[in-house]
Amino acid sequence: MTYNVAVAGASGYAGGELLRLLTGHPDLRVGALTAASSAGSTLDEHHPHLVDLAGTVLQETRPDTLAGHDVVALALPHGHSAEVAEQLGPDVLVVDLAADHRLTDPTAWQEFYGSDHAGSWPYALPELPHADGSRQRDRLPGVDPSAPRRLAVPGCYPTAVSLALAPGMAAGLLEAEDVVVVAASGTTGAGRAVKPHLLGSEVMGSMSPYGVGGGHRHTPEVEQNLALAAGRPVLVSFTPTLAPMPRGILATCTARVVPGTTAAQVRDAWAAAYADEPFVHLLPEGRWPRTADTLGANTVHLQVALDPRAGRVVVVAAVDNLVKGTAGAAVQAVNLALGLPETTGLTTTGLAP
Amino acid sequence: MTYNVAVAGASGYAGGELLRLLTGHPDLRVGALTAASSAGSTLDEHHPHLVDLAGTVLQETRPDTLAGHDVVALALPHGHSAEVAEQLGPDVLVVDLAADHRLTDPTAWQEFYGSDHAGSWPYALPELPHADGSRQRDRLPGVDPSAPRRLAVPGCYPTAVSLALAPGMAAGLLEAEDVVVVAASGTTGAGRAVKPHLLGSEVMGSMSPYGVGGGHRHTPEVEQNLALAAGRPVLVSFTPTLAPMPRGILATCTARVVPGTTAAQVRDAWAAAYADEPFVHLLPEGRWPRTADTLGANTVHLQVALDPRAGRVVVVAAVDNLVKGTAGAAVQAVNLALGLPETTGLTTTGLAP
Amino acid sequence: MTYNVAVAGASGYAGGELLRLLTGHPDLRVGALTAASSAGSTLDEHHPHLVDLAGTVLQETRPDTLAGHDVVALALPHGHSAEVAEQLGPDVLVVDLAADHRLTDPTAWQEFYGSDHAGSWPYALPELPHADGSRQRDRLPGVDPSAPRRLAVPGCYPTAVSLALAPGMAAGLLEAEDVVVVAASGTTGAGRAVKPHLLGSEVMGSMSPYGVGGGHRHTPEVEQNLALAAGRPVLVSFTPTLAPMPRGILATCTARVVPGTTAAQVRDAWAAAYADEPFVHLLPEGRWPRTADTLGANTVHLQVALDPRAGRVVVVAAVDNLVKGTAGAAVQAVNLALGLPETTGLTTTGLAP
Amino acid sequence: MTYNVAVAGASGYAGGELLRLLTGHPDLRVGALTAASSAGSTLDEHHPHLVDLAGTVLQETRPDTLAGHDVVALALPHGHSAEVAEQLGPDVLVVDLAADHRLTDPTAWQEFYGSDHAGSWPYALPELPHADGSRQRDRLPGVDPSAPRRLAVPGCYPTAVSLALAPGMAAGLLEAEDVVVVAASGTTGAGRAVKPHLLGSEVMGSMSPYGVGGGHRHTPEVEQNLALAAGRPVLVSFTPTLAPMPRGILATCTARVVPGTTAAQVRDAWAAAYADEPFVHLLPEGRWPRTADTLGANTVHLQVALDPRAGRVVVVAAVDNLVKGTAGAAVQAVNLALGLPETTGLTTTGLAP
Repeated sequence: MTYNVAVAGASGYAGGELLRLLTGHPDLRVGALTAASSAGSTLDEHHPHLVDLAGTVLQETRPDTLAGHDVVALALPHGHSAEVAEQLGPDVLVVDLAADHRLTDPTAWQEFYGSDHAGSWPYALPELPHADGSRQRDRLPGVDPSAPRRLAVPGCYPTAVSLALAPGMAAGLLEAEDVVVVAASGTTGAGRAVKPHLLGSEVMGSMSPYGVGGGHRHTPEVEQNLALAAGRPVLVSFTPTLAPMPRGILATCTARVVPGTTAAQVRDAWAAAYADEPFVHLLPEGRWPRTADTLGANTVHLQVALDPRAGRVVVVAAVDNLVKGTAGAAVQAVNLALGLPETTGLTTTGLAP
Repeated sequence: MTYNVAVAGASGYAGGELLRLLTGHPDLRVGALTAASSAGSTLDEHHPHLVDLAGTVLQETRPDTLAGHDVVALALPHGHSAEVAEQLGPDVLVVDLAADHRLTDPTAWQEFYGSDHAGSWPYALPELPHADGSRQRDRLPGVDPSAPRRLAVPGCYPTAVSLALAPGMAAGLLEAEDVVVVAASGTTGAGRAVKPHLLGSEVMGSMSPYGVGGGHRHTPEVEQNLALAAGRPVLVSFTPTLAPMPRGILATCTARVVPGTTAAQVRDAWAAAYADEPFVHLLPEGRWPRTADTLGANTVHLQVALDPRAGRVVVVAAVDNLVKGTAGAAVQAVNLALGLPETTGLTTTGLAP
Repeated sequence: MTYNVAVAGASGYAGGELLRLLTGHPDLRVGALTAASSAGSTLDEHHPHLVDLAGTVLQETRPDTLAGHDVVALALPHGHSAEVAEQLGPDVLVVDLAADHRLTDPTAWQEFYGSDHAGSWPYALPELPHADGSRQRDRLPGVDPSAPRRLAVPGCYPTAVSLALAPGMAAGLLEAEDVVVVAASGTTGAGRAVKPHLLGSEVMGSMSPYGVGGGHRHTPEVEQNLALAAGRPVLVSFTPTLAPMPRGILATCTARVVPGTTAAQVRDAWAAAYADEPFVHLLPEGRWPRTADTLGANTVHLQVALDPRAGRVVVVAAVDNLVKGTAGAAVQAVNLALGLPETTGLTTTGLAP
Repeated sequence: MTYNVAVAGASGYAGGELLRLLTGHPDLRVGALTAASSAGSTLDEHHPHLVDLAGTVLQETRPDTLAGHDVVALALPHGHSAEVAEQLGPDVLVVDLAADHRLTDPTAWQEFYGSDHAGSWPYALPELPHADGSRQRDRLPGVDPSAPRRLAVPGCYPTAVSLALAPGMAAGLLEAEDVVVVAASGTTGAGRAVKPHLLGSEVMGSMSPYGVGGGHRHTPEVEQNLALAAGRPVLVSFTPTLAPMPRGILATCTARVVPGTTAAQVRDAWAAAYADEPFVHLLPEGRWPRTADTLGANTVHLQVALDPRAGRVVVVAAVDNLVKGTAGAAVQAVNLALGLPETTGLTTTGLAP
């Protein structure tokens, strides 16, 4: 059976990447493509790399253009998904690539996004270990037609950081205070909005931080995930930086270990957590992730080390922010919700060098 | 008066950058250039950008080729400076751009470098605030001819990290445990050795960590500096990463604040520490450093913020690893030792974009 | 039916890219992987992005390790293929990704490569239009088991340049003298050999030419192809340049038009030449190729314009040098020789941005 | 004596680079800085690398804000200089970094810029050899106060291309037809306008052409210069491409040689042309320019080779588009007009790697 997928927000980077994956997916078919100000243009004006869809005309993002599909993917700016989602019927599967439905705590939403909370949907980070030994996958609605047909796709930084630290939190090896994360992201993480500081002349050959001091919107999402893993609140100092590359996130995550924790315990906890996860790849000891190895793939590359001097673990995670960090995660969520094998249409092989 | 400067290790990146600065310095003149395996070649084979010195023939690094200069700069691989330095007379001013004479603790040297300790020289990070209110500048030998004529130039990461955190340590605002630093460096930081993982094909479009888990050699140097600032031992978790750019370091440094510390106290401490320092530039509030703004300049760009949620300060420092991080620092040290104005021949203006 | 493919030279960039494509190919299966000095190591030491093949041990490149496969792909340095190929039986399908068997003229081989000519194999650039209206595809051996089981994969620059100019040559619109080509290549085009000028520090933020003045080895291959298209000798001035990106070729190709040639004739000739070719994509008028749009894809993006002032056409072609320029072309050749649909296991969708 | 320089258009890349050079110039002092929409902001919002001028407030570009200076530099978008210049007194020295006053032929201006021609000013490319053995320097007004106080600064591409080919044209070694130029430029060449195709995500890792087919506005300027060198009209096919780097131009220029021309004649012509020119650096034989070697310097790096097979010379020129290509050329022009040594405040040493 083939399912039709409408993509709202097809002209942006997330939408384009989703279309790239859909064209290679055996069971999903590209349906209506919609946009806001770009409605009326053809797709190749925005994504000349999507040769097979070149002439497709973008329609306006409206209930009628999105109607009649099995799946609707919302690749819209944060804050725009809720209104569109409300106009879609309960039977259609809706995946939201924006942040609107990720946070369960309305207060956190308001503090970091400054608008009314739209409510939360099941959070599609299947691999996340919980404190009780279960996975987030177990919390997701299955193919039961009576289950809710709404899924929130995780943010790119939260995917990398949460999967990096959760095994140690779930295994009780890490303290919940003084978690420090510094992450570097390629420029597509900032979206396609045309802003002066995102010009090639400004970003090439340069690194800079942004959203410093606790203000980045992904902070509460990371804390929400790690709290599920730890079984208690977790406090994170998170500093994102902009790196001179188009794609990729390298998240360097550190946390204090519970006194007495050994390197073997650390290794075992991470190895056990992801032994059966097709999309989380713990590297051989002594090797460290490179973002290039994940490009185009739905894979997280991970490595962990115990620094006995500092009494901390350092976990480094690399992901493609547009794939496992956004569009690949959306496809993975759709696969799960439709009862397809979770890995269908996704690759673990990166495009390097 | 003009001083002759011999440069040992002229074919590497540090040596080349020093020559770039020397050609623009009004009081220093390029003397003998020496090298190891490159002896006999002309400088333009290694540094075609140094047009004015193009035809200079590199000599072997030997006492006789280095003799007869006012200053000898050692831009050699770590572990090679000591032997060369011993063969130079006590009256010549020697600046060591390598790590050999930076650490005061022989045990730390052996642990991180694995060889015998060559002893320590005065450490030329003039701006470093000490716990007693003095500066490292006050510890450096002046122009008194009886003073020791040896100076150790700080490492690139330690310069950025130490100047980032020292004001808070010296002001008693920061705790000495749980200091976490994640820094990104351009590839020249790894030197000019021809290694597979430094090929352009491997580094462009990619980020990766290295020396994770406490093993990076700059860790004890950072801790040594911060201990001077704090007046007690400081423990640092340091993770360096390799960024897809040729130059520049962006160091993201966090530490827990003493309970009750206010944002105003933080701002004041950093502003006061560097108000009179020509090469440390605290940015206006709300603006964050970009490495590109420091390219070619001897400047550290700094910003600090208090994250009240996490109870930590985040300080970000940007430097050009080859200038303030190496060769510019060497010129600054020579200026001081020769009684020249400290800023002679150095610029605070970066080459951006 | 599934075919086993041995890859000789698996540790290099061409070998790695071929493995990336093979892991996604439905009818081809990765067999023995061999190498020279890297024999004994595992694949993930060289290609950490190929997660599914991570632990595969590289064997020595020898007849016995390559035996027992349906297909042997030679991804060896130029000059090494012939000796290996001679030791393989006549029934095995051998594709040579190096230059050894591309040139039909022994004199040209000796002039540009300086060694004895190994002979020529059928040249696998299926799309190349010939002067007589046929295609190079028609010259390739089919699945007839009695046909020769040897194929020479075209070089990366020749693929881009030949497909760019051949339509005008075949249509009689272009003069055969004063063809001028300037092409930019990413650094993987120079292979994985560890040379100082290929260090990231040297190539990032910089452009430079190489092999200037007619000396580049791809010149006679381009001229050989264009002569087939034009039906007479063609003389090409070819200058390659090294661009600060890992992948991609942008070839800017110009030739004088026969007097009286109109823009419409030009457009028609190129449109007609590639109307039915799945891997050659002539862009809509007014749009120009970007290398990023071809990354990972087996596609050539083309655009052509007539410059009436200068009396020349300018054709710009973009390809991924490792895919359509090397490993994708090899898969395409294998598909043809095995009677599989030519596009099997290959995509036309690039990984952008 | 110190001269005050007002800079109109201080927030753009050309204006910023001029300010960088002025802060290091011993005889020129930064005066009023003006802008259009950015008036009222401080300089560090636009150029955080210019630390010494950080707090300077930008004024509106008006006759009264520009009044009272010895020199006014116009770093405005093309088409805006003329109106501003008309409002300035005849005694002030005005240098126009835009194209408005470069072309002597009103028809060419209208064809390529589509507006009324503002007239032409003396063209400040001092090194350009003329057919009669003179230099363009000889055509520039000197310090005679009665001489016109207006100078047009050459475009970035025309500087590189004209200096590359002019020696052969002036020496009668090159034919004036079938000149073909393909040049790669860093993204600052496109200015600071915020356009989607100039986003970092779009340009990093990618090459693309623009203005193909004779339409680039620098074509008539190149032809005007080469006609002066050749003593007869010259026709140029010019294709610019955008390269993934912030700065630098690499121009690959080819022309047919007059039959019988030898390699020695070629070498001699170029060597003789620039033997006494401080800012044109002909590389040793066999070495080719790299843009990185010119960064921040006012130097053109050149190499020339005869391709006897194709009967063409290939000349490759590298410049920093913002220095010798724009702001450095402006300083050089001001030096000449004020009777200062031509090289004052300019360096020939690039910032590499």
